[in-house]
Amino acid sequence: MGFKLVLILWIAIVEGALEQDIKTSTAIIFNKGGLASETKARRQPCIGEIGDILENIRSLMHNANYSDTPLQAYIVLMNDAHQSEYISDRDKRIQYISKFTGSSGSAVITETQAVLWTDSRYHLQAELEIDSKCWMLMKTGQEKVPSLSEWFNLNLPPKSTVGIDPFVISSTQYKSIQDELNSGGHQHQLISLERNLVDDVWLDRPEPSHNEIVPYRMKFSGKSAGMKINEVRQKLREDNASGIIVTALDDIAWILNLRGSDIQYNPVFFSYLILTHKILMFFVDERKLLNDSLLQLTAEKVDFQLRNYEDISLGIEEMVNNTLGPIMISSDASQAIYRKIPSGRRRVVSNIIADMKAVKNSVEAEGLEQAHIRDGYAVVRYLHWLDATIDMQNVTEISGAEKLSQFRRQLENYRGPSFETISCVGPHAAMAHFSPTPETATQITRDEIYLVDSGGQYWDGTTDITRTVHFGDPTSEEVECFTRVLKGFIALATSVFPRKTQMRYLDYVARRALWQAGLNYGHGTGHGVGAYLLVHEYPPLINSGSDKILHKNMFTSNEPGYYKDGEFGIRIEDVVQVIEADIENAFDGLGALTFKSITYVPLQTKMIDRKLITNEEVTFINEYNQRIFEVIGSKLLQNNLKETYEWLEEETREISL
Amino acid sequence: MGFKLVLILWIAIVEGALEQDIKTSTAIIFNKGGLASETKARRQPCIGEIGDILENIRSLMHNANYSDTPLQAYIVLMNDAHQSEYISDRDKRIQYISKFTGSSGSAVITETQAVLWTDSRYHLQAELEIDSKCWMLMKTGQEKVPSLSEWFNLNLPPKSTVGIDPFVISSTQYKSIQDELNSGGHQHQLISLERNLVDDVWLDRPEPSHNEIVPYRMKFSGKSAGMKINEVRQKLREDNASGIIVTALDDIAWILNLRGSDIQYNPVFFSYLILTHKILMFFVDERKLLNDSLLQLTAEKVDFQLRNYEDISLGIEEMVNNTLGPIMISSDASQAIYRKIPSGRRRVVSNIIADMKAVKNSVEAEGLEQAHIRDGYAVVRYLHWLDATIDMQNVTEISGAEKLSQFRRQLENYRGPSFETISCVGPHAAMAHFSPTPETATQITRDEIYLVDSGGQYWDGTTDITRTVHFGDPTSEEVECFTRVLKGFIALATSVFPRKTQMRYLDYVARRALWQAGLNYGHGTGHGVGAYLLVHEYPPLINSGSDKILHKNMFTSNEPGYYKDGEFGIRIEDVVQVIEADIENAFDGLGALTFKSITYVPLQTKMIDRKLITNEEVTFINEYNQRIFEVIGSKLLQNNLKETYEWLEEETREISL
Repeated sequence: MGFKLVLILWIAIVEGALEQDIKTSTAIIFNKGGLASETKARRQPCIGEIGDILENIRSLMHNANYSDTPLQAYIVLMNDAHQSEYISDRDKRIQYISKFTGSSGSAVITETQAVLWTDSRYHLQAELEIDSKCWMLMKTGQEKVPSLSEWFNLNLPPKSTVGIDPFVISSTQYKSIQDELNSGGHQHQLISLERNLVDDVWLDRPEPSHNEIVPYRMKFSGKSAGMKINEVRQKLREDNASGIIVTALDDIAWILNLRGSDIQYNPVFFSYLILTHKILMFFVDERKLLNDSLLQLTAEKVDFQLRNYEDISLGIEEMVNNTLGPIMISSDASQAIYRKIPSGRRRVVSNIIADMKAVKNSVEAEGLEQAHIRDGYAVVRYLHWLDATIDMQNVTEISGAEKLSQFRRQLENYRGPSFETISCVGPHAAMAHFSPTPETATQITRDEIYLVDSGGQYWDGTTDITRTVHFGDPTSEEVECFTRVLKGFIALATSVFPRKTQMRYLDYVARRALWQAGLNYGHGTGHGVGAYLLVHEYPPLINSGSDKILHKNMFTSNEPGYYKDGEFGIRIEDVVQVIEADIENAFDGLGALTFKSITYVPLQTKMIDRKLITNEEVTFINEYNQRIFEVIGSKLLQNNLKETYEWLEEETREISL
Repeated sequence: MGFKLVLILWIAIVEGALEQDIKTSTAIIFNKGGLASETKARRQPCIGEIGDILENIRSLMHNANYSDTPLQAYIVLMNDAHQSEYISDRDKRIQYISKFTGSSGSAVITETQAVLWTDSRYHLQAELEIDSKCWMLMKTGQEKVPSLSEWFNLNLPPKSTVGIDPFVISSTQYKSIQDELNSGGHQHQLISLERNLVDDVWLDRPEPSHNEIVPYRMKFSGKSAGMKINEVRQKLREDNASGIIVTALDDIAWILNLRGSDIQYNPVFFSYLILTHKILMFFVDERKLLNDSLLQLTAEKVDFQLRNYEDISLGIEEMVNNTLGPIMISSDASQAIYRKIPSGRRRVVSNIIADMKAVKNSVEAEGLEQAHIRDGYAVVRYLHWLDATIDMQNVTEISGAEKLSQFRRQLENYRGPSFETISCVGPHAAMAHFSPTPETATQITRDEIYLVDSGGQYWDGTTDITRTVHFGDPTSEEVECFTRVLKGFIALATSVFPRKTQMRYLDYVARRALWQAGLNYGHGTGHGVGAYLLVHEYPPLINSGSDKILHKNMFTSNEPGYYKDGEFGIRIEDVVQVIEADIENAFDGLGALTFKSITYVPLQTKMIDRKLITNEEVTFINEYNQRIFEVIGSKLLQNNLKETYEWLEEETREISL
C-alpha cells in the first residue's frame, strides 16, 4: 500500500496540536472538523464478515442485558484498559470490526451506520482497508469534516443514548466526550456499559497473554521494590492521601522490579496495583509469575496480596471501604476506575509514579549508557555494512532493517527491538513513522537520503536512535536542510539551564535554525525513555506544551527533523541525559544543568553546509564524533573488526569550516 | 538612602516566579516563606502619628458600623480599585499608615500588631522608613519568613475574622487569600467591608483628581469609539454573554478614545464601563469631561449614559436586573465587582479588551513608530551631550535624567514621561529600577557603565528605551556580559516564527547566551506598550509564563539584561513590532512572523566582545545602526545639529569581527 504524503499531518499538528500530548490522539480526532456532514448514501448493502460483526454489535445495543436503555450509538476506541500508547492484539477492536490497521482512530456504530475517524497519516490507508459499503470514513483534519459531537448532532435524534466501555477511555477523555454530547442543545447521554460489545461478539479474539513475568534484578534496577513502595507511601503521606491506584503498565513494572512481554516491544504485563498505607494489592494473572519473581518480591521486602487481574473493581471497592481519605489516580486512569471511587474522594493528579520513574537512579543511568554504547556499536556496524554493500547487492529498506536487527541480536543483554524499525529511503522518510513492507520496500542506494530510526531493549536500558545519511552526493537543498536540523540538534544538546526550567522552554532552540528559513517539523522534539521499559516514556516530553520541569538524571531524546513531501526526510536523534553543568558561575551557586549525549553513533558530516554551520558547532561535531571513535573504535578493534574501524575513523575525521 | 543589592530578587524571581505575571506581586509576597514566626517583642510603645493612625484603625475594627463581627485583623494592600500597576497618591494607603514608600508591599493590622510584607528590593528601604516600635517587617523571600496565612495561624486565635476592602483586591487574589485562611484547620474567615478603614481615618487624604479628560483624536486612534464598542458587543454575542464590566483604566480610555492624567505618567482617568447589547454606562466624574470630549463621543457614535463614578455598585445591580445571561469580567476585576454579580452569571475571563487593544491598527502602529523616531532623536542628543560634557562639568544621574527630559520636552506631540527615568551609574544599575535621589545621585564619568531607561508619552505613542553605555574603557568582564546580553537581544529581535506561537516560547533565546555562562536576569524579557497609554501594557508579556499568542501588530519591548551585584548593570531595550516575515517558504504558506525594531537609538559597539559575537550578529548590528544613522542623522542635519550628527556617524560606524 502506498501512503498519501503526510505534510498535511505536520501542518495539522503545528496549527492545532503542538501543545497536545502525543497520547491524546483521540481528542485530536474528535475535536477537529467543520460543520457539514459527510453522509454518503450507501447504495449497496453491507454484507460479509464485517456486515455480520456490525449486526451482532447492533443487536447487543438493544439487548437489555447490556443496557437498560437501548443504545443509539456505541463508541469504539483504540485503547486498552491502561491507556497504553501501544496496544496488544487483543485490544485491536477497531481492526476487528473494520479491518483498519492504522495506529490511531476512533469508531462509532449506530443502528444504521458505522463511522471511522482517523488522521491524515492514515487517510489513504483507511480508504484501502475498510469496506465502504459498511464503513464511512471521516478524514480528520480536512475541511468540513465533522467532529464526533457534530456528527452525533447531525445524525442522531436529540437525547440519544451513546454507550462506551469505561475501561478503554480515560476519565478526562470520558468527560470531554460527555461534555460535547451534552452541549449544543441535543442533550445526548453518554453511558458506561458493564461489558464491551466488541469483545462479546469477537469469537476468535486473541487470548490474554500467558507470557512469563520475570524479575528485574537489582544490578539493573538499583533500588528495591520495597524502597520504591515506601517512597510512594511517603508521597501519599505528604499529599494527605489514603491510597493510590496504579494503572499504567510501565509504572507497575517499575515499582515491582518485574518485566513481562504482553505488548510487542514493551516489556510490561497486564496488571493493576492498589496501594494504601497498610496494604498492597497486586492484580495479575498469577500463572505468569515465575517463582523467581515471587522470590525477588520477598527479598525486596514487598508485602502484597495477590489478586486476580479481573477483580480490580472488587479491589477498589475494598479499598474504598477500608480507607477514609482521598484516593489518588492519574489523569490517564480509565473511567471505569474513576467511577468506582466516590466523587468526594477522587484525587486526580498528574502521574506521581511517572514523575518518580523519570529521574533515574545512578544504576539505571549507568545501565542506560552501557546499553547505548552496545547499541551504538551495532548501528555503526550496520551503517558501515550498508556503505560497503549497497554497490554490490540489493539492500532494501526491509533487508537493511533486518541486518541491523541481526547486529543487535549479537549484543549482550539484548532482549529485542524497542519498536518497529523505521528504515526509509528518499520520500518514504518524509512520511510519519513509515514502516516498510515487502510490497513497498525501496532499495537503498547512493542516490537518495536514507533515514533509519531504531532501538533495542536491553536488560540495562531502552535505546532509540535516528541517523540520516547519504552515501552519494546530496543535493544542495538536502545539505541545507540537514544542516538546519543539525544546528537545532546541537543547540538543544548544548543548552545550559537553571533548575526548574520547564521542558517546553527549550523546545524553540531545536527549531530555530529551521524556523529562520520558514521550515518546521510537526512532531515533538523529545520524549523520555525507560530503563528497560517503554521507548516513549513521559515525562519528559520536549514540545511546546509540557510545563513539567527538567531534573537531573532525566533522559530524553533530542530529535529535530525536516520532511520534504515527496522528496526526502531528515531526522537526527540522540538520547541525552540531564546532568549538572560544569561551569564557573552556575547561576550564582544555584547550579546549572545541561545535557550529555549517551548515543554512540557518529554524525555524518557529508551533508553539513559550511556556509551555515558555525565554528562552535564544528567544534561540537568534532568532539562528539571523537568521543564515538574512542569508545566504539576501541571495541571494534578488540573484536578485530578492522574494516569497520577504518570506516568509523573516516566518518569521525575532524572537519573544519 | 542606599539600597541593598538586589541579586536576591533576581534569584527569587528565577527560582519561584518566572511564571508569575508582574502584577501579582501580592501573591508572591503572601506565598513565600517558611513556618517559623518572626515575632519580636516590642519593648517600646508605638506612639506618635503612626501610633494614632493604627489606634484609629483598630477602633474601627471593633465598630459595629463597619463590621457586625469584630475584626481580629485588617488587610491593607497597595492596589487601587482597578488593579492599576501604578497607583495614585490617594491609594497609597500603606504609605499613609506605615510611611513605607516602596512600590510593592502588603500590610496586616491586628489588635496589637502591625505587620508589613515586602520583597527584597525594598527590605533595606522598609527598615529605614518604618517605625519598628509600631511595625514589624516581614522580608519576603528570606528563609523562615512566614507567609500571610502562616502568620495568621501563628498569631491569631482560630476562627478569627479578617477584614478587607473588596474594591482593592482582585477576585482571584481574594479567593486565594480566603483559601489560605481557611486551610490548615484554623478556619479564619475573610470578610468584605463596605468601607475602607484606612480611608476613613485618613484625614488629609488626597482629593480625587479633577484633571480634565481630553479627546484622543481619530488621527491617532485610527478607529472610532463607536466601532470599538460594536466590536466588543460582537465578542459578547460570540461568547453568548449579556454584558461586560470594564474595570481597567487603560481599557476604558482605549475604548472611548479619551485620555486623562489621574495617575502620574499614565494618561488614564478613574472610571468604569458597563456595556450590554443595548446600553453603555460610563461611570466618571463628569466635571472632568471636556466639552470637546463629549462632542467627540457623539461624533464617534457612542451612545451612552453618564453616571457617577461612585455609583458603580448601583449600576451593576441595574445591569443584573435588566439582563439575563452571563456577565463578563476580567480576572483582574475587583472582588467588589465580582460579588455584585450573581454567582451563576459570573463569567470571569482573560481580559478580552486587553487582547483587542494589544493588536494595534495601522494608524496606531504608524503613530508608535513616529513617536519612537522622535523619542530616539532626543535620546541620541542626550547621549551625545553626555559624551561631550562629562569631562567638563559634573553631570549626575539626576542632572542627566533632567537633561534628557529637556530634550524630550522639545519634541512635537510630547505629553510627559511615560515613567520615572532610571538613570544609573555602576552598581546602581544592578539594582532593580533604581531611581536616583539628590542624596544618592552619582556622577556620570568615563570610569563606569551608565544605564539609562526612559520613555515618553506622545499623542501618537508611548515609548520605552534602555541603553547601556561606557564612555571610557570597560573591563573585560563588562565587555563579555554586555555581549551576552546583546546576543540575546539580537536573537529575539531576529526570531522568525509561525502564527500561534506563544510568547513564552521565545523567552529562552533572549537568555541563552547568558545561560551558557551560568548568568541570568531576574525579570521578564518583554512587555507590551500602549498607544499613548500605559508603558507596561499586557498582553504581550514575554517571560516564561505567558501562554498568550503573538499576533501581527502587537508591540513588545525586547529587554534582556545582566546585573552584577555591587558592580554594574546592563540592559538593552528596544520596542519591536510583530510583522510578517518576508521569507521564501513561510511554513508552507501558513505565513511567518518576525520582529521589527521601532527604536531609533544606536547600539554602542565599544563593549562588543569580538570573540563572542558572530558574523551574523555583526551584520545585524551594522544594519541596525545604519538604519538609525539614516533616519536620525538626517533629522540632525535638518536641524543643524552638526556635532551630534558627527557623533552619531561615529557611533554607527560599521564594525567587523
